[in-house]
Amino acid sequence: MKRRNILLLFLIVLPWTLLISVWHQDVGHPVLLTSRDNRSWAYKSHPSGYHLQTPCIKEHRPLTDTKHFIVRRPPPWTPSLPTLHIITPTYARAVQKAELTRLSNTLQLVPNLHWLLVEDGLQRTPLVTHFLESSGLNYTHLNVETPRNLTAWREKGKATRIPRGTLQRNLALRWLREQIDSRSGHLGVVYFADDDNTYSLEVFEEMRWTRKASIWPVAFVGGLRYEAPKINTEGKVFGWRAVFDPHRPFAVDMAGFAVNLQLILSKPHAYFKLKGVKGGYQESSLLKDLVTLSDLEPKAENCTKVLVWHTRTETPQLVNEGKKGFTERSVEV
Amino acid sequence: MKRRNILLLFLIVLPWTLLISVWHQDVGHPVLLTSRDNRSWAYKSHPSGYHLQTPCIKEHRPLTDTKHFIVRRPPPWTPSLPTLHIITPTYARAVQKAELTRLSNTLQLVPNLHWLLVEDGLQRTPLVTHFLESSGLNYTHLNVETPRNLTAWREKGKATRIPRGTLQRNLALRWLREQIDSRSGHLGVVYFADDDNTYSLEVFEEMRWTRKASIWPVAFVGGLRYEAPKINTEGKVFGWRAVFDPHRPFAVDMAGFAVNLQLILSKPHAYFKLKGVKGGYQESSLLKDLVTLSDLEPKAENCTKVLVWHTRTETPQLVNEGKKGFTERSVEV
Repeated sequence: MKRRNILLLFLIVLPWTLLISVWHQDVGHPVLLTSRDNRSWAYKSHPSGYHLQTPCIKEHRPLTDTKHFIVRRPPPWTPSLPTLHIITPTYARAVQKAELTRLSNTLQLVPNLHWLLVEDGLQRTPLVTHFLESSGLNYTHLNVETPRNLTAWREKGKATRIPRGTLQRNLALRWLREQIDSRSGHLGVVYFADDDNTYSLEVFEEMRWTRKASIWPVAFVGGLRYEAPKINTEGKVFGWRAVFDPHRPFAVDMAGFAVNLQLILSKPHAYFKLKGVKGGYQESSLLKDLVTLSDLEPKAENCTKVLVWHTRTETPQLVNEGKKGFTERSVEV
Repeated sequence: MKRRNILLLFLIVLPWTLLISVWHQDVGHPVLLTSRDNRSWAYKSHPSGYHLQTPCIKEHRPLTDTKHFIVRRPPPWTPSLPTLHIITPTYARAVQKAELTRLSNTLQLVPNLHWLLVEDGLQRTPLVTHFLESSGLNYTHLNVETPRNLTAWREKGKATRIPRGTLQRNLALRWLREQIDSRSGHLGVVYFADDDNTYSLEVFEEMRWTRKASIWPVAFVGGLRYEAPKINTEGKVFGWRAVFDPHRPFAVDMAGFAVNLQLILSKPHAYFKLKGVKGGYQESSLLKDLVTLSDLEPKAENCTKVLVWHTRTETPQLVNEGKKGFTERSVEV
């Protein structure tokens, strides 16, 4: 009789344990953030803002719905993994939705991801708003316009251009600092992912446990197949495999490094510089306020593997569109 | 005592049922194919070829492996859904791996997918072979070289060029006809997806239940924001919203239609034509042997939505690569 009871208990406990563990792997868990304020420029997927344990994913589609069956799979959330805060500046152009579609398809395969998409514009556009709402991703949708008059500043009689994306990336850094309480112990990593690059899924796992700043090669920059840090026998960065100005403090592309979130929060004055920054020095202008060369953590098998490509998409030649357009303007492309 | 037994039975049966149903949704099921022969040019993910209920996915990574946790999620397999046979021609170039990476990331989100990747070359390359092996996708890896001498045929004194991808798409059609027994009742759809386009996840679900041939708009072709079929009030195609030669039998881009697999199998002589085909007539050369205009099934909300974009990637200007290359040749890009 006792044996029978033990067997019964086993038959009940085992499947429930398995079920609970399966659920834990599947359910979309929240971004572990503590809301500090709710600035009007910050539109979030969850209307009340981020709170500890407040889900950012609004709904789970039922698996039995054939039509949309797994068409949108929200990236899973695992409590033990640090959050990847992916900062993407974007601007209106013919291929914008296509590029965002491609990037979103990749991001959907990455667990514990929070996408900060920052539009270059006076308003957040309906195209990007609808796109994000239907993406199934955890996201924050921001906007700030780069001044049209790029010669807003003049130094030593020379017009100084604000590099594309700089104001947008800075706004996202500010959002993280204002929204996330550093005392919350939130584990996270910050990565700048432009919407036209190509990302292997591996690159997101390489950066996940960044202590200060991780670094790796990027293909198709500086007129080379790839640029990469030079690594010595002790696994430390000592220089740059680059032709274009290898004496920059950090001769690395925007897609080639990631920074620990707590480090970003602990250095509230570290931003991309707007004024007097030569071409190729944007990355250095942020990194030199955060780390030294010896802090860098080489990833991608000691920087010998290419996991991210600086691809660029051709501007389509719409030569057959008339003045009013042959196609329906109401159809979103 | 009886009540207690019923309760116990319930507590045992319920979780097991739930567990089994969860397993059924998660496990990668096989491509439902019957092997008919095993031609040497057909390299498959499963070494013994396709058989009914033989898994094509070689392994499932354990979910507890943090490093690769969900980095590769094989697309799920659901017995009730038709298989999408996605035919992609590809050729060696600087951005090849980047383009394949992007497309593979999208395809990983699509259930019941079988990727036929056909290299333009005398051999299957290590780059593509390793890429496919680690992709987690169900795939068939083929190759055929387009003759270097594109003036192989001359008609009426004019050199006739073989359009890029034609021989590769035809080889994949032949593979399907030789490998799949039409009597097996295998439900499937055939779609030609080039490796540089951009695909929303929706387009794969739109085509899934194709009876004869589905059709939808494609962005950035023919010098337009998008080309689309014209649909009458009865939901039938009666013409083409195109500027470039709208009198083609089927004025549709390669990415704008999908065909039922059984229809492909039942018309064994329908191929893309190699000779005497004018630019823009490749799609027509196949479709006119398979369907008439009235057979076409408009998708994407009666062809009013853009779900696929004919994007093109710029060729990177590697101006700083020396004769031997500044970067290590052994590093794959």
